[in-house]
Amino acid sequence: MKIISFDDIAQMEQRYRATFVNSLWGFRNLSLIGTCDEKQNVNFAVFNSLNHLGANPSLASITIRPPEVNRHTYQNILYSKYFTVNNVTKEIYKAAHQTSARYPLLINEAEVNGLKTIWNKKYNVPYIDESSIVLVMKYEQHIELTINNTVLLIASLQEIIFKNNVIDEDGFVNHLAANSINCVGLDAYYESNLISRLPYAKPNNS
Amino acid sequence: MKIISFDDIAQMEQRYRATFVNSLWGFRNLSLIGTCDEKQNVNFAVFNSLNHLGANPSLASITIRPPEVNRHTYQNILYSKYFTVNNVTKEIYKAAHQTSARYPLLINEAEVNGLKTIWNKKYNVPYIDESSIVLVMKYEQHIELTINNTVLLIASLQEIIFKNNVIDEDGFVNHLAANSINCVGLDAYYESNLISRLPYAKPNNS
Repeated sequence: MKIISFDDIAQMEQRYRATFVNSLWGFRNLSLIGTCDEKQNVNFAVFNSLNHLGANPSLASITIRPPEVNRHTYQNILYSKYFTVNNVTKEIYKAAHQTSARYPLLINEAEVNGLKTIWNKKYNVPYIDESSIVLVMKYEQHIELTINNTVLLIASLQEIIFKNNVIDEDGFVNHLAANSINCVGLDAYYESNLISRLPYAKPNNS
Repeated sequence: MKIISFDDIAQMEQRYRATFVNSLWGFRNLSLIGTCDEKQNVNFAVFNSLNHLGANPSLASITIRPPEVNRHTYQNILYSKYFTVNNVTKEIYKAAHQTSARYPLLINEAEVNGLKTIWNKKYNVPYIDESSIVLVMKYEQHIELTINNTVLLIASLQEIIFKNNVIDEDGFVNHLAANSINCVGLDAYYESNLISRLPYAKPNNS
């Protein structure tokens, strides 16, 4: 075994440390978050911080970097309250990655990269036609994490738009059938294979 | 495309909804969190909510369910301040899953399931010998998410104990070399294959 100490981390070159720490925690889900501003200008941005908070009510959080940097997604969610979470499939991961480039405010990052945007009239939100699982989310609250000036944004699940055959009989969402991929850090994309689903754990010998 | 509405979700049978919502967001990392109490009784629990918060300082969060339920991990972290995050590899995923069973307070969930616990004297924390990446974390703060009575616990990275060959030249942590697996929901375990690492995205034609 080798050890990297606190001091070693502090002395890492900035880009090396960003790559190292971002990838340290392991695999994460990957989504395109779709929002719009007051003129219904559409914005899409790739996120890997979607985190389950609870099933009843159905809540998730996303983490947003310091909002004083121009953050279209954050501003739009605070304005319009509704947004979409679009799963990234193997077919569209290059386009999803490319949405992280710094495009001008009025550019639709999805369409400029070849993805088709659909407008959902019920919630007034844009979503990605190529995604196989689209979640319509409603802003609930945000919490400023003063420790590093990030924001935890909490949202509730409103509706799911999905392609056939991605939900198993017991309610399990089959992300292999959905062709969802995952990521490590900011630039590494992976496809997965099921090892096993295990039964509910009980103490041994009980 | 099919639609599941807000009312459909509300009317789901409880277990079906828990399975559905937990698996909806996609792939998540998987860790065994190691803690101890004031008598150095060791506790290990499997977590899938580890989330990157920032690289400088190096911070991550975990989400803890309502703490009035007897939560050994939470109580121990508040007491001892330090804990370990041990990656779950394909070799130990069954044991990791089994730690989620309701064992008595003084049982070491890792050892009872065949894993070897090592005591780190520098930080007074237990870790898993079979893990290829062990993070020593320090409690920084916790935030009660009143919306559903969960707790967001924020911790800083102190030290990394790892096996050879899991860190690439640019600092990227190679979770395939580390044999890390990932999960969906509470019971489905996956291994991954790299599709690609992509270069930093710039606007097209720039």
